[in-house]
Amino acid sequence: MDPVNVREFEALARERLDPVHYDYFAGAAQDEVTLRANESAFARLALVPRILRGAAAPALDVTLLGADASMPILMSPTAFHRLAHPDAERATARAAAEAGTIMIAAMLSTVAIEDITAEAGKVAADPSLWFQLYVQPDLGFTEAIVRRAEAAGCRALVVTVDSPALGRHERNDRNAFHDLPDGMRCENLRELRGGEPGSVRQVVLSPEISWRHIDWLREITPLPIVLKGALHPLDARLAVERGVDALLVSNHGGRQLDTMPATIDQLPLVAEAVEGRVPLLLDGGVRRGTDVVKALALGASAVAVGRPILWGLAADGEAGVTRVLETLRAETAHTLTLCGCDGPRAVTRDLVREVRCCH
Amino acid sequence: MDPVNVREFEALARERLDPVHYDYFAGAAQDEVTLRANESAFARLALVPRILRGAAAPALDVTLLGADASMPILMSPTAFHRLAHPDAERATARAAAEAGTIMIAAMLSTVAIEDITAEAGKVAADPSLWFQLYVQPDLGFTEAIVRRAEAAGCRALVVTVDSPALGRHERNDRNAFHDLPDGMRCENLRELRGGEPGSVRQVVLSPEISWRHIDWLREITPLPIVLKGALHPLDARLAVERGVDALLVSNHGGRQLDTMPATIDQLPLVAEAVEGRVPLLLDGGVRRGTDVVKALALGASAVAVGRPILWGLAADGEAGVTRVLETLRAETAHTLTLCGCDGPRAVTRDLVREVRCCH
Amino acid sequence: MDPVNVREFEALARERLDPVHYDYFAGAAQDEVTLRANESAFARLALVPRILRGAAAPALDVTLLGADASMPILMSPTAFHRLAHPDAERATARAAAEAGTIMIAAMLSTVAIEDITAEAGKVAADPSLWFQLYVQPDLGFTEAIVRRAEAAGCRALVVTVDSPALGRHERNDRNAFHDLPDGMRCENLRELRGGEPGSVRQVVLSPEISWRHIDWLREITPLPIVLKGALHPLDARLAVERGVDALLVSNHGGRQLDTMPATIDQLPLVAEAVEGRVPLLLDGGVRRGTDVVKALALGASAVAVGRPILWGLAADGEAGVTRVLETLRAETAHTLTLCGCDGPRAVTRDLVREVRCCH
Amino acid sequence: MDPVNVREFEALARERLDPVHYDYFAGAAQDEVTLRANESAFARLALVPRILRGAAAPALDVTLLGADASMPILMSPTAFHRLAHPDAERATARAAAEAGTIMIAAMLSTVAIEDITAEAGKVAADPSLWFQLYVQPDLGFTEAIVRRAEAAGCRALVVTVDSPALGRHERNDRNAFHDLPDGMRCENLRELRGGEPGSVRQVVLSPEISWRHIDWLREITPLPIVLKGALHPLDARLAVERGVDALLVSNHGGRQLDTMPATIDQLPLVAEAVEGRVPLLLDGGVRRGTDVVKALALGASAVAVGRPILWGLAADGEAGVTRVLETLRAETAHTLTLCGCDGPRAVTRDLVREVRCCH
Repeated sequence: MDPVNVREFEALARERLDPVHYDYFAGAAQDEVTLRANESAFARLALVPRILRGAAAPALDVTLLGADASMPILMSPTAFHRLAHPDAERATARAAAEAGTIMIAAMLSTVAIEDITAEAGKVAADPSLWFQLYVQPDLGFTEAIVRRAEAAGCRALVVTVDSPALGRHERNDRNAFHDLPDGMRCENLRELRGGEPGSVRQVVLSPEISWRHIDWLREITPLPIVLKGALHPLDARLAVERGVDALLVSNHGGRQLDTMPATIDQLPLVAEAVEGRVPLLLDGGVRRGTDVVKALALGASAVAVGRPILWGLAADGEAGVTRVLETLRAETAHTLTLCGCDGPRAVTRDLVREVRCCH
Repeated sequence: MDPVNVREFEALARERLDPVHYDYFAGAAQDEVTLRANESAFARLALVPRILRGAAAPALDVTLLGADASMPILMSPTAFHRLAHPDAERATARAAAEAGTIMIAAMLSTVAIEDITAEAGKVAADPSLWFQLYVQPDLGFTEAIVRRAEAAGCRALVVTVDSPALGRHERNDRNAFHDLPDGMRCENLRELRGGEPGSVRQVVLSPEISWRHIDWLREITPLPIVLKGALHPLDARLAVERGVDALLVSNHGGRQLDTMPATIDQLPLVAEAVEGRVPLLLDGGVRRGTDVVKALALGASAVAVGRPILWGLAADGEAGVTRVLETLRAETAHTLTLCGCDGPRAVTRDLVREVRCCH
Repeated sequence: MDPVNVREFEALARERLDPVHYDYFAGAAQDEVTLRANESAFARLALVPRILRGAAAPALDVTLLGADASMPILMSPTAFHRLAHPDAERATARAAAEAGTIMIAAMLSTVAIEDITAEAGKVAADPSLWFQLYVQPDLGFTEAIVRRAEAAGCRALVVTVDSPALGRHERNDRNAFHDLPDGMRCENLRELRGGEPGSVRQVVLSPEISWRHIDWLREITPLPIVLKGALHPLDARLAVERGVDALLVSNHGGRQLDTMPATIDQLPLVAEAVEGRVPLLLDGGVRRGTDVVKALALGASAVAVGRPILWGLAADGEAGVTRVLETLRAETAHTLTLCGCDGPRAVTRDLVREVRCCH
Repeated sequence: MDPVNVREFEALARERLDPVHYDYFAGAAQDEVTLRANESAFARLALVPRILRGAAAPALDVTLLGADASMPILMSPTAFHRLAHPDAERATARAAAEAGTIMIAAMLSTVAIEDITAEAGKVAADPSLWFQLYVQPDLGFTEAIVRRAEAAGCRALVVTVDSPALGRHERNDRNAFHDLPDGMRCENLRELRGGEPGSVRQVVLSPEISWRHIDWLREITPLPIVLKGALHPLDARLAVERGVDALLVSNHGGRQLDTMPATIDQLPLVAEAVEGRVPLLLDGGVRRGTDVVKALALGASAVAVGRPILWGLAADGEAGVTRVLETLRAETAHTLTLCGCDGPRAVTRDLVREVRCCH
């Protein structure tokens, strides 16, 4: 099969992956209500294009926190790429650099952040990587890993704030999948005190992490800080007041608290709360160029994709990731053209209309 | 199979129960519209968590009508536990006492109320049991059974008010299941005048029961009175005016009048009517910790579960009930943590958002 | 199978009927959207009962246009009962009289109106029958048939006004079913001029019928006039102004114009338009006692049922019809009891609440 | 099978067509959300008929841009009729002329426009044909083809404005169907400069086409200009201001940008924007006479049908097209009669009511 869209990459990945690992990537918390909602919510939003604008072929590039991206589609941080393909994060990093977009490297990667950025550097002169961080109660470790990310050339910190505890994935419970297989480890965790070096079980997801930790991060690093997972409008406003540089509107792909709203449904409320004071990104359910443009219309500066990257990686390593990215790029350009827009900035709120649920 | 959630306990119970008895527990009135609505209504409510609150691990305990419960999850009254397991209400009582929560013992139990409270007392020093009552036109019998409940140590009366007649369960009609099998009886009914002692057929569900009977109960007993089944806002207000101590918002699990609204859909209207003057409880469709937190957000002080207890009992006796309770406790704690709440009282209305029906 | 509800009578009827005749009764116009809507619309209305009213067992009787009925459930006019059972309208008439309710005898009956009323008279001293009329452009014939109905003892005329043309039933087209089988005829049409005596093809459904014909009827007969099929609020108001005595809110069971709204969805708009100046009846999709009570709450004085009567007739002749009527009666009484109402007049608008569509 | 409605013609066509060609006609862009929405949106609109108007049998004829049509149902432009039947556009043209309605001949026809109009002229003295145009950046070619359409007797230009790029049909991608089979060509493209004469690949769908091109068309031709594909109310208003003569509200049958709204859902917004200053047409999902009347009620002067014509053509050539047109005509007349309307102009906005989505 030669996949013609992102969904077909998932089908291909499913064939190639160990079912337990497929479930790890595909699954989400509990009843997976949010997982489904993320995708289905896009279908209830219609695009009403403008016509006859004599627009040029669209330019997709955007600038985010000082970094240029060739398109408004980033890589969301996802853990354990080695489960999908032996080239692991090296392949994803090369594909992102090749595509000229931003990879948000996950703290729980199976390749060390230094190796990820180095690999990207082989492909592009000036690749953009951001580093996703779970703030650890052990501030020493947290500072050390931030320093590693800085030294490796990461240009922003994406701080995940929706994880005061680990999400409950019942697929993993049924599969008794709770740690990486032998021979794989979290290469960024080698310095964590105690326990087996590099074990995912060493990561602490603690409810004690608070705004004070964000303030502290603000002090110790000059990197821009992106908050990933603020969905409540009151929190979005607090984040802006605390000097956060951007928000990634995310429900963790449905993997943390089940029955969270779809991100695309929550985006307008967040956008209203922040009043344009910081750029917004969105992930969750983006599978089509039309989804990208809907998110832009509702207030996002760019979107990020998680599972689609993994499907590409599982299907065909770096080449698969490249094809997924280029599929989404082509669909986004196509959608912009059909909407009469010459680029992301031309996308206005009125291009989207909510339609009734039997759509 | 090792159940990882409440729904899987139902599957297990279904395997173990006589199909006729499974139908008795699982079924509801007529087309079972309300039964399904109770569950599906929760899926249309999304949770929008707060972040970075630096909250401590949540404490789940609540105080209800002067009784402490270790979590905001009570046992709803359900009849005929012996159909589910030979240990019957003894097993459920022990599991409730062990879990430190409140069992609402049903008037139509297959173990006498004295034996239920005694059994609970073997496990916990000071177990909390409330007694569910169908007021009988025979006030002598009604007073006698109230006295038995008082003497047995029950700490509140839960008066069912949605049953001026018996619900029509067509599953039971098809199964010709209309009374307990030989060897089982309603142990609390032995004193009812006339008829076979302890037969369920002796219970009178009469439309003549009125607010005057509530006033009369108020006079004859010092126990707090909880009204179970007031769904109409006007009735909720009347109940408060009559001095009722709490309301259990319930549609009898869909077993009385079919096409009643889901309780979680009705809860906000009841909460608005009572304006916080009495605590509200809710049962109906609670199968997840997220359901518990949604009910708290919409105005409940605690929820109660009925069928899940029976699934646990049928699956594995006391141990099964314990596992069901601990599963719900863990999910509720987990949900509170993920919502940034350190306990039930931290749950606010804005954590819940209604989402469109294709969720 | 021993049917426990109306839907099970349909299943039984389906087994017993010639499939072509089953399709004739069960089917409706074109895509049968309205047929399904009539039933599904009830499920989106919830009943919110009142409690503790100390109500007596409900009395179901109503008085409609001076006629007493033992319950607020009438027989809608339906054609060709002989297709369902050899006893035909004789059986239905006896069952209606026995049940003490009003049969609206159809003009297209396979038993003459005189024989229908006579048959009812054998069972009840003072049976109530109304006569359903398609006004014919041939006013001579129309007057003649009105005179026959009067003489036979019918107490009201139910004038069908939604049929300026014959509905298109594609089931009948596919079955090539366009007239009665040999040996059956429309016994009321024997006097129609021209053509084969008693052929259904002689009936003229003409767009020329207008309010003037209603005025003319008003002049020629002292019988109360019920308009069947006025759904538009403007027409309901016109009807009241023209002196019509009652409205039967109906979409002809979905058999005329497909995609008409469900009658229960249209009832509140009609009720608002007529402001209580004439009684309203409703047919369409009533299959449960809860449906009856919902219609009462939304403004109907009574409902009428069509297909359920035919399922009973097909299943077991007069006895089947009786059982269908008694099932609906029992369910309605049960619903009233559970709603705290002592009769149809106690049913108020606030007992019904619209719920979201995933109910 | 003898089709009794349009949908059954599709089933018949599917049997007769090469599956690759069936997919080309039946398919639409990407996930085909808009394709399904076009049809399902009609089901959520109910018709509330008027009664007793004494209307004459309805006259269906309408006048559009000076051209008479015997019914408010036109042929939408569709490409490549030869794929459906060897008689190709000759058959469709004869059927349209015979039916007395307007054929909008597609620029991408497999019969030259001169031959199409000539064929129509053999059947009707004064057939009405309009010509659908994709404005080409090569204005010389564009002017030449407009001149050919004028000379051939076309009476209006229908300018497609929703196609700044070719829609992505994944069915065609999977079938590797990207050009006409050998022996078929686009007969109107023979004069396009460069490339193989008459190849569909020569058509340029360019985002550079703008309102200036419409102004230019306005100058070079006296033919009325109909804009096909303006869905955004702002564009509808711009079109009126630019002097466009009519709008065909269309989403290209879902074949361009997926997730556009259903046309019937967008029609009221367009109607509100143009305030009656130009006539509106609609295509997309019209399969029933009730659909036609709903479009009329919401502001259309007439509808156009695309795929149904192709199903008729594939099923039985000219005779099949004729049967499809006559089926829709009969259904429309029937619907008007049942709504109490004596023609399209009697259809008012209040005949349509939006119903809840579980309809």
